[in-house]
Amino acid sequence: MRIDIITVLPEMIEGFFNCSIMKRAQNKGLAEIYIHNLRDYTEDKYRRVDDYPFGGFAGMVMKIEPIERCINALKAEREYDEVIFTTPDGEQFNQPMANTLSLTQNLIILCGHFKGIDYRIREHLITKEISIGDYVLTGGELAAAVMADAIVRIIPGVISDEQSALSDSFQDNLLAAPVYTRPADYNGWKVPEILLSGHEAKIKEWELQQSLERTRRLRPDLLGEE
Amino acid sequence: MRIDIITVLPEMIEGFFNCSIMKRAQNKGLAEIYIHNLRDYTEDKYRRVDDYPFGGFAGMVMKIEPIERCINALKAEREYDEVIFTTPDGEQFNQPMANTLSLTQNLIILCGHFKGIDYRIREHLITKEISIGDYVLTGGELAAAVMADAIVRIIPGVISDEQSALSDSFQDNLLAAPVYTRPADYNGWKVPEILLSGHEAKIKEWELQQSLERTRRLRPDLLGEE
Repeated sequence: MRIDIITVLPEMIEGFFNCSIMKRAQNKGLAEIYIHNLRDYTEDKYRRVDDYPFGGFAGMVMKIEPIERCINALKAEREYDEVIFTTPDGEQFNQPMANTLSLTQNLIILCGHFKGIDYRIREHLITKEISIGDYVLTGGELAAAVMADAIVRIIPGVISDEQSALSDSFQDNLLAAPVYTRPADYNGWKVPEILLSGHEAKIKEWELQQSLERTRRLRPDLLGEE
Repeated sequence: MRIDIITVLPEMIEGFFNCSIMKRAQNKGLAEIYIHNLRDYTEDKYRRVDDYPFGGFAGMVMKIEPIERCINALKAEREYDEVIFTTPDGEQFNQPMANTLSLTQNLIILCGHFKGIDYRIREHLITKEISIGDYVLTGGELAAAVMADAIVRIIPGVISDEQSALSDSFQDNLLAAPVYTRPADYNGWKVPEILLSGHEAKIKEWELQQSLERTRRLRPDLLGEE
């Protein structure tokens, strides 16, 4: 799949997409990520992407023209499944949404910055507004990186050990069970004995029971038991 | 305030902290961000930070020793308000939590990676587990960046126009009203007339009514009206 990210601050997230699993996914040809500098789509000599808001409010607002030019240039090359805007009042991003988006071909993610973007962009150019959580960030860049990471890592083949992704928290509406590694006894902090028993069936049972217990205690909403 | 981030992949987020508002906050002396490479706290020649999990599960688990060494080294230098672990089954990060954490002096954020961290670290060394949302990421690095961004930007003086942060979504449990900038008419897409009227009181009233209407429609839970 292909993800085009439109931003005024490419340097905020370029490093992220050039390392670890995001780099591996691109090297394997499983994902293409392009970061577009919105200023390249301005036509004035100051390369302005923002302007004062109507109504005398505080902060600056991202202008329509460069954004429309950039989106139109991308759309002229290929069809996009969604043109996403990252905003705290959008639909809440979650694992089922990541799963769905990982099945699409082409996505545009527009990162907001400053006080926000001209609302007409949201009405006319955006097809999906997504929030990664109930908090305000400097810009949409980190939100775009978060979404891209959650979406790309579940494309088959990206993570070497697929079992590992399938047993993640949320994939079955359960939180993951605790995990332990060596040493079995670290200054008196001990690993649960069952994990050292080698009894595969009992270990599986323990894992499920731990998952259920943790989910019930920490996130009963995931079980519909709130 | 000071934030120490412990990670196996510093390069994932170093770029982020060296630009935009995070850089400005550090240059102004309002925030200090230190990124620690966990491998610097290993003592074997392969600088191993992970090992196979007990119980035969898939994936790798982060070991106790380097993490404890790093946390202890930091704690020997100063007192920390919280030692935070980023995990999808933690307490949900939100704006009130960002506000509270922005009033602390020293925070450690430990980024998980691979399949997870040895659960004994969570039991004995971590004071607060935080999730930025109901989705799974490659690692805790982006979650740490998201938290640091939300926390640092609301420290007084970081954003030049403080009014701008105060009128953000969530700060008063309301979503923000739409914003618009020039041109007033963009190929027939028009700015609401009230915003061009210059009538300050009516504009304020419109803004509040838009905030309420959007919150009621999109996020009735914020108003306790679910």
